[in-house]
Amino acid sequence: MGASDDDREGGAVAPTGIRRRTLFGAAGAGALAVGAGAGYLARGSADAAEHPVADPDAVPVDFAGEHQAGVTTPAQDRLHFAAFDVITDSRDDLVSLLQDWTDAARDMTAGNEVGKFGAVAGPPVVPPEDTGEALGLPASQLTLTIGFGRTLFAKDGKDRFGLADRRPEQLVDLPHFSGDRLEPAICGGDIAIQACANDPQVAVHAIRNLARIAFGRASVRYSQLGFGRTSSTSEAQVTPRNLFGFKDGTANIKLEDTDTVEDFVWARSGDGPTWMDGGTYLVTRKIAMRIETWDRESLEGQQGIIGRAKGSGGPMSGGDEFEPLDFAANSRDGEPMIGEQSHVRLAHPDFNGGAKLLRRGYNFVDGSDQLGRLAAGLFFICYQRDPREQFVRIQNNLAGLTADLMNEYIVHIGSGIFACPPGVGSTGYWGESLFT
Amino acid sequence: MGASDDDREGGAVAPTGIRRRTLFGAAGAGALAVGAGAGYLARGSADAAEHPVADPDAVPVDFAGEHQAGVTTPAQDRLHFAAFDVITDSRDDLVSLLQDWTDAARDMTAGNEVGKFGAVAGPPVVPPEDTGEALGLPASQLTLTIGFGRTLFAKDGKDRFGLADRRPEQLVDLPHFSGDRLEPAICGGDIAIQACANDPQVAVHAIRNLARIAFGRASVRYSQLGFGRTSSTSEAQVTPRNLFGFKDGTANIKLEDTDTVEDFVWARSGDGPTWMDGGTYLVTRKIAMRIETWDRESLEGQQGIIGRAKGSGGPMSGGDEFEPLDFAANSRDGEPMIGEQSHVRLAHPDFNGGAKLLRRGYNFVDGSDQLGRLAAGLFFICYQRDPREQFVRIQNNLAGLTADLMNEYIVHIGSGIFACPPGVGSTGYWGESLFT
Repeated sequence: MGASDDDREGGAVAPTGIRRRTLFGAAGAGALAVGAGAGYLARGSADAAEHPVADPDAVPVDFAGEHQAGVTTPAQDRLHFAAFDVITDSRDDLVSLLQDWTDAARDMTAGNEVGKFGAVAGPPVVPPEDTGEALGLPASQLTLTIGFGRTLFAKDGKDRFGLADRRPEQLVDLPHFSGDRLEPAICGGDIAIQACANDPQVAVHAIRNLARIAFGRASVRYSQLGFGRTSSTSEAQVTPRNLFGFKDGTANIKLEDTDTVEDFVWARSGDGPTWMDGGTYLVTRKIAMRIETWDRESLEGQQGIIGRAKGSGGPMSGGDEFEPLDFAANSRDGEPMIGEQSHVRLAHPDFNGGAKLLRRGYNFVDGSDQLGRLAAGLFFICYQRDPREQFVRIQNNLAGLTADLMNEYIVHIGSGIFACPPGVGSTGYWGESLFT
Repeated sequence: MGASDDDREGGAVAPTGIRRRTLFGAAGAGALAVGAGAGYLARGSADAAEHPVADPDAVPVDFAGEHQAGVTTPAQDRLHFAAFDVITDSRDDLVSLLQDWTDAARDMTAGNEVGKFGAVAGPPVVPPEDTGEALGLPASQLTLTIGFGRTLFAKDGKDRFGLADRRPEQLVDLPHFSGDRLEPAICGGDIAIQACANDPQVAVHAIRNLARIAFGRASVRYSQLGFGRTSSTSEAQVTPRNLFGFKDGTANIKLEDTDTVEDFVWARSGDGPTWMDGGTYLVTRKIAMRIETWDRESLEGQQGIIGRAKGSGGPMSGGDEFEPLDFAANSRDGEPMIGEQSHVRLAHPDFNGGAKLLRRGYNFVDGSDQLGRLAAGLFFICYQRDPREQFVRIQNNLAGLTADLMNEYIVHIGSGIFACPPGVGSTGYWGESLFT
């Protein structure tokens, strides 16, 4: 077989060192383009300027920046989230892993393959550096966002990496919330990586290649796919619906509202350790929905539980989707139109000391369970400046069957909290400030 | 809560009888549109003609036709496949289920909600007829394709529905193939429904609502999500890649090749029972990939196993992707350039008595297993005129560790075979010819 493959490699296929994804990228993007002339260019192709295409997925999201991308980036359509356990006790190995990951993240978010050779141009006698399934696909607005769990700083009382005294106090051990039924196998993790893209194949490719690079240093603890984002972070985006059929994210922080983003999302100087300045805190919750039970609830009942109309998304106190909630409005029988146990009321800043979250959740369907019920729900993701004052406070208000009426239809089965370091520039690596 | 909800329903939200998805459809489609002027129209909106948008997802795939849609329809990007067990022994209940399903399929493939009232316009005191999560989304080229399993005709020797003598001989019990490790919970099923769409939320919505309609008559046995189709059925589509990183579907039947489609896909008069004239036979295989093992194989090794170059997809005998395979070509050392145990050789019509399949597979990632490995692979779907001469013949050629070299990296864990009846017109129901 050797000679025949050498023949191929020496022939029409792959001059060593040429990045294949970029070669194929222009064709891929062009095939996806709808209409023309919108001013976007295919990237990475030598003749990109000659072939303008209308596909925004061909324009990468900047990896470098003051903050990590994937937080205030308008939410992409697909998610692959992975939590890793670090399996080395060597600080040097951990640092080299973060360096290797950062290099690969730079490559992949730009729409390129990982590694020096790419998928198909390396020496034929070694495995390809890139696994190849994203060849020909555009960058698809891929973002990769990293966070560090409590166990990276100290695990079972052991300070593996000399980081114990650098753990921010904001990175709390989440308390038990009433009603939690957490499954340990899908909780925690030393490191989390959120891959968001408009194509699931691109998001899956990214997590797979990061997992592969981690070999011997970190292994995947759990991973989760999601689709159909449930939270809008840009005024330009239509509010998507969750699997209860309701618009989800109407009252979310809008990324155009920079003052609110500054106040509620980014850790700033003086908040905690300086290595987190410009970072943020990520909380994830895998929330299973009792879909079949919900589907037997009346329209009136569903709307009362949520506090919004199912069709328009407008509050039960009246008006369209973006009308402010009027908690004082009463119906003819003297009851609040937005019920006291409704989800929107209990989650609202007015009932949580003004606290707000930047949410970025994704619907998930993991097939069906053994009873034929959809194994489905919401992979809830939120970013914040201080989880103690934001997620924990709000979730304490929501949790328990005597609180949010929605709790009859949901179960929290997975949980994680992570400190996401600030962004990196065109050099440097994820979390460098933690190690220097 | 009652009065307040009544106020909402009587007010700004939902005049009874108006189809909400169509109301919201125009805005949703417009928000997704890229560029303008491509001549597509938003459907369902009263003023659609005034707001042309460029989104092909706004144009539904015809549900009515001689054949069912979803077979030779150019493959959409996303899959939700479900197998059902019929849980009634009443023939009348089975017929009514098929009628109800057909009505709902007509609605949903057109981009509408199911039922008379839609999601949010029915009486508030009963559950909404539609679950609502696709409100505002375009039709997204949704197709729904039904097939009947062997157990619908007779199960455990019992002829539940008086159909035993109508089972086509083509609907064989698939033999055990060498290497199979089938898990019974994800095999078989009385009825299969394939939902394909360009938006996973639309595909999930369809299966969910069909499962809900089936309550008391059929329940989901298993379901599977997939993405990034691995087989092209149109010359206009770029060949996608599977999770081995190789183009998959290069040699697939092209739908433009109508003679081949007629010869290999559609059951014709005289083939079997007349109720299947214009139908086709569906075989599904859930194929788990040993991703991490594959990723350690050299580029040369991977290409030798497949028989094609990873980058271009061209055969190892030379040429670009669509160059014919030259099985006689030898390398300098006298070995065949396309190895005798390569996948493309063993699957090729030349080595299978000319047999061809119309493939329509989807990549799947079900998260990670307990060892942190990707629970991933290919949900293989193929359509054919006679599985005995097509899938069974080819799979016998591929199966076993002494045959296709790829078998070291894959395991077949799920399996199904179904008789897909012909299409229905603007009236009638799925499988009507079987019951009359």
